[in-house]
Amino acid sequence: MFCGISRRAWRTYSSSALSSSSTTIPPTIKHLLSFPPSVDSLVKTQGHVKAVRSFKNLHFVDLSDGSTHSTLNVVLNGDTNINFKVGQSVSFVGKWVESKGSQDYELLYDSTENEHKAAVIGEVPESYPIQKKSSSYQFLRTLPTLRHRTSSLASVLRLRSFLEGSFQRFFEQNDVIKVSAPLITSSDCEGAGEQFIVEAKDSKPENPFFGKPAYLTVSTQLHLEVLSQSLNRVWALTPCFRAEESHTNRHLSEFWMLEAELSYIESVHQICDFTENMIRYVTQDVVQSIANDLAQSRYNKDERQAMEANWKTILQSEPWPRITYTEAIEIINKIKNKGRSKGRLTWGDSIQTEHEKWLAETHFKSPVFITDYPKAQKPFYMPESENQNSTVACFDLIIPGIGELVGGSVREHNYEKLLQELKNRNMSIEDNEWYLSIRENGTVPHGGFGMGMERLVAFLSGMASIKDVIAFPRTPGSCSC
Amino acid sequence: MFCGISRRAWRTYSSSALSSSSTTIPPTIKHLLSFPPSVDSLVKTQGHVKAVRSFKNLHFVDLSDGSTHSTLNVVLNGDTNINFKVGQSVSFVGKWVESKGSQDYELLYDSTENEHKAAVIGEVPESYPIQKKSSSYQFLRTLPTLRHRTSSLASVLRLRSFLEGSFQRFFEQNDVIKVSAPLITSSDCEGAGEQFIVEAKDSKPENPFFGKPAYLTVSTQLHLEVLSQSLNRVWALTPCFRAEESHTNRHLSEFWMLEAELSYIESVHQICDFTENMIRYVTQDVVQSIANDLAQSRYNKDERQAMEANWKTILQSEPWPRITYTEAIEIINKIKNKGRSKGRLTWGDSIQTEHEKWLAETHFKSPVFITDYPKAQKPFYMPESENQNSTVACFDLIIPGIGELVGGSVREHNYEKLLQELKNRNMSIEDNEWYLSIRENGTVPHGGFGMGMERLVAFLSGMASIKDVIAFPRTPGSCSC
Repeated sequence: MFCGISRRAWRTYSSSALSSSSTTIPPTIKHLLSFPPSVDSLVKTQGHVKAVRSFKNLHFVDLSDGSTHSTLNVVLNGDTNINFKVGQSVSFVGKWVESKGSQDYELLYDSTENEHKAAVIGEVPESYPIQKKSSSYQFLRTLPTLRHRTSSLASVLRLRSFLEGSFQRFFEQNDVIKVSAPLITSSDCEGAGEQFIVEAKDSKPENPFFGKPAYLTVSTQLHLEVLSQSLNRVWALTPCFRAEESHTNRHLSEFWMLEAELSYIESVHQICDFTENMIRYVTQDVVQSIANDLAQSRYNKDERQAMEANWKTILQSEPWPRITYTEAIEIINKIKNKGRSKGRLTWGDSIQTEHEKWLAETHFKSPVFITDYPKAQKPFYMPESENQNSTVACFDLIIPGIGELVGGSVREHNYEKLLQELKNRNMSIEDNEWYLSIRENGTVPHGGFGMGMERLVAFLSGMASIKDVIAFPRTPGSCSC
Repeated sequence: MFCGISRRAWRTYSSSALSSSSTTIPPTIKHLLSFPPSVDSLVKTQGHVKAVRSFKNLHFVDLSDGSTHSTLNVVLNGDTNINFKVGQSVSFVGKWVESKGSQDYELLYDSTENEHKAAVIGEVPESYPIQKKSSSYQFLRTLPTLRHRTSSLASVLRLRSFLEGSFQRFFEQNDVIKVSAPLITSSDCEGAGEQFIVEAKDSKPENPFFGKPAYLTVSTQLHLEVLSQSLNRVWALTPCFRAEESHTNRHLSEFWMLEAELSYIESVHQICDFTENMIRYVTQDVVQSIANDLAQSRYNKDERQAMEANWKTILQSEPWPRITYTEAIEIINKIKNKGRSKGRLTWGDSIQTEHEKWLAETHFKSPVFITDYPKAQKPFYMPESENQNSTVACFDLIIPGIGELVGGSVREHNYEKLLQELKNRNMSIEDNEWYLSIRENGTVPHGGFGMGMERLVAFLSGMASIKDVIAFPRTPGSCSC
């Protein structure tokens, strides 16, 4: 009655479990290179042709499957009847031998050996656009289903995957529990509008699916605050959405936000400490574990050096500078705007992106925390700064080349003060009843932050546009595949 | 100019980094119990009052912060002027001492010691509904901001967090790269309708934000297939959405789906192997690492035993049975419907949820794979089974008590066959052009699966409703906070 396949008993996984001979799934190229088979053994491998050189009946194929930046070199001796082309998917059975090339090993196919095999799995058209010579990232964006076959963009996706694991380890080590907040919500976290509305395709206006208007979340913060009261420390990595008509290298309509809320926090500097430690931790992890993969995958030396300079900026031995908003305004006026009568900032003005970038890139040459912004510039849930009037206990972390990477604050945990602030801003008490209610039931001081995941990936990979560090970017007018 | 706080130099994190004295964030209760301070040292701790017993001027407070199922026992000797109540948030400074109770250590507060402190951070109203005696999960659903302060639901969120880490490890070990697929999409993966439509709040009908209608994804599969061609093996854990009017314990409008796509797969049994290994791996991990946390957090012995029985069902030494759809129909007719004239199934009928549950719970008493369903019941991208007509190379994994946990298949990788199937089903070639195109450019055989994360969490925690294993469930008519 049962099919005969896979009747083997369960065994505990070793680190190489699936890629080993215990399974019927063929090993990745990463696995073959990391855990090489015995020399002279017969090995089957598959991938895409990355490059090919032919000399009469001798062919050298660089085989890639995207599991690592490394290619497997296949040497084909004798006729294969294959017209090798870059982009083809191919399959080889050959002998695993030591190599004199850049890798320790290579696969040797010999047409006179009966067991050796070479076959094309999938052909490519003559116009296959991903060739060995580099294409601009802008051009590659016109090839959304093919662009991740380039070494460069594949390595960015591997970096992103690695970072998720690194964050997971950092938070686990610090007792921060990963939670999921809803993406469909009836609340508007920032009070800023620019939301997407969600409705069932077939619903009637008088009968909305959720019983009332529902939106895509712009931040999971309010829900994380609820959960931080139950679990002490929580984090989430979730898509967030902004219906802004922005066409920049720094904005997406759908992006991933890493948010954390920590209980028993009373000062904005505790959150700055945590944030700095977190970003240093994952950067250190990247440098230790996948620097080589990233460096080898960059198009050229300039790209590679720019990326490595970014890592050094994060890992500098000095703690990152911290200045208040008020100090930032003074520095910009005194140094950037020195001698100019136009463009001087007045206390209360917004610090523009160009100013933020100047502070980080030119003035401090470092990531920089700007704390204690004017209350009027920030949302209702931020409490007043400890020693200052008219400012709130918050920070933005500014990174060279990127601008704002992280924003965070202490959250007002006093019921009366929060209620008053909602009233002052003419915000709905009813809509925020659930959020207010946690301040009535054993409230605790707490704070947190949100970080744009794509901005961090862009900085650590040295990519100029966040559209190139997310697999399928969503921007105004663009949602085609 | 800089503030004076946290000028310390960066240091590499140890496993107890943030919770140690190197930071200004106070340790969690989990950390205090796992890495106990020196006996007789002065310790500060905070949390919610879980239980309190008083004898004249002697108070015993069980303190919980949700970081672990364990409470910290605080013994208060002398007058504190505090009327302790369950649910209050409190803060204590006292002496760390060895305990004769259930924990190895406890905190001793002595009112005659000047350095010792006891304070209420946040009061609770007299009506605070989360008391020591257990409430029904149904009642707790009416308290969405408070219900995770119960031991039981807090432990389910910790399980969920742990599982994410466990999946991350499993996939890393097997060279499966974590990717993110877009949630806003113009495609309809299953061709099944019942989607949510997304539009900017302020957009005009003649000028849609994305230039055309956009939907919330029902599955990330098609996008993962694109990426698996570039990276060999990929996975994602992402919210997915169904605008179904379902009011069951097994359906949500917004749920988390774990999906994977693996290249160079040719048989459905390779995917079944992978799936079985994955679920066994994470279950083993749960049993080894957090069984105690889960067991201690259950309301009663029955709940605990039911949960532990579910673990044994997964970890049975025998491989899980695999039957074809055709065999399943035969078994149901021969055994379940024996002697009945009504209710007999004919080949081509759907296997209903009640039949699935009967197969897993009663007949096999095991998870069971059902493979090779009739083509007419399944989506366009599934290829025909190897040896059978009119069926496709797919499977559903059925789990006792839950029903379908995982669904997967080989994906048609032949361009002509896929194109023909789209035509046969009168589906839009234009809308699926991008998906088709990967079959024209070095196509590779591949397959994958999708698993409902909430269903797995429900099974491993023994919870009856998936509404209790997601922090803020979204169901028809319900999106209130």
